[in-house]
Amino acid sequence: MDTSETAAPEVSPSPRGAAETPWLDAREQRFWRAHLEVGKLLEHQLSRELQSHNLAINDYEILVVLSESPERRMRMTDLATATLQSKSRLSHQITRMETAGLVLRQECPGDRRGLYAHLTEHGWQTLQQVAPDHVRSVREHFIDRLTDEQLDAMYAALAPIAEHLRGLRGRG
Amino acid sequence: MDTSETAAPEVSPSPRGAAETPWLDAREQRFWRAHLEVGKLLEHQLSRELQSHNLAINDYEILVVLSESPERRMRMTDLATATLQSKSRLSHQITRMETAGLVLRQECPGDRRGLYAHLTEHGWQTLQQVAPDHVRSVREHFIDRLTDEQLDAMYAALAPIAEHLRGLRGRG
Repeated sequence: MDTSETAAPEVSPSPRGAAETPWLDAREQRFWRAHLEVGKLLEHQLSRELQSHNLAINDYEILVVLSESPERRMRMTDLATATLQSKSRLSHQITRMETAGLVLRQECPGDRRGLYAHLTEHGWQTLQQVAPDHVRSVREHFIDRLTDEQLDAMYAALAPIAEHLRGLRGRG
Repeated sequence: MDTSETAAPEVSPSPRGAAETPWLDAREQRFWRAHLEVGKLLEHQLSRELQSHNLAINDYEILVVLSESPERRMRMTDLATATLQSKSRLSHQITRMETAGLVLRQECPGDRRGLYAHLTEHGWQTLQQVAPDHVRSVREHFIDRLTDEQLDAMYAALAPIAEHLRGLRGRG
């Protein structure tokens, strides 16, 4: 099984490209593939477990973000930014979640820009029910498989990269 | 901006859940959030760059996987496994890629199980054109931001997790 998105084995970069950007070497490539694979497989596993609660993984994220917001609501535009989704994709998702009774979309009186997504009481109860199982899975399949040293070292490596990427996204 | 998918701030796990599975502590949570954020933002950035070549990131992955296969083709079932997609989702994607002339779907004579996806010459040329830019981005936004020591340490941490998750998926 191969989940690489970068290796292009028989393809060599053009001489010019090679001079500018070296191909990934074997060490870099095995790391890059492991990174992609863990991301994908972990999402797959967590999604599968959330399905038993009739939740998609993106639904769970929305429930968490809204639960953290003042008055458990957020302007749709801000929610799209927070969850790194396009507005149209978020809109479809919120429609689905409204049907399930997890959130409610409402205009904010006196705020012409404002269409808000609200967490409903059912959404809040659902999050409280599901969160312990979800945390258990995150521990079992990921966090508890890392030593404290690995966890801190990976955080130190990832945090500046996250900041760099946030900056790029802001400029996009 | 918050991309957490696990934290459920005001929600405490039930006493029973707490005894069995402790909540993520602050160190674990900041790591978990950084991990999710880098995964999501990096995919967003790489996707955006591939769009200038009219490719989705999943298209790129398919091109790579097919280019690595004998005769540059693969049985659809195996391709779904290799790219960790459902068969129906892969089928939609291959239809789209067929329209773009990147792949071709063909039955294999004498193999009743076999519907294959083939990489076309146009697909192969596209991969050759796009790969150097993609590798450059992977380096610029990720790999080259890690020291050799970080890269090796992260690989050592991720490889057993990838293996664990592959095992789960196999059983699913």
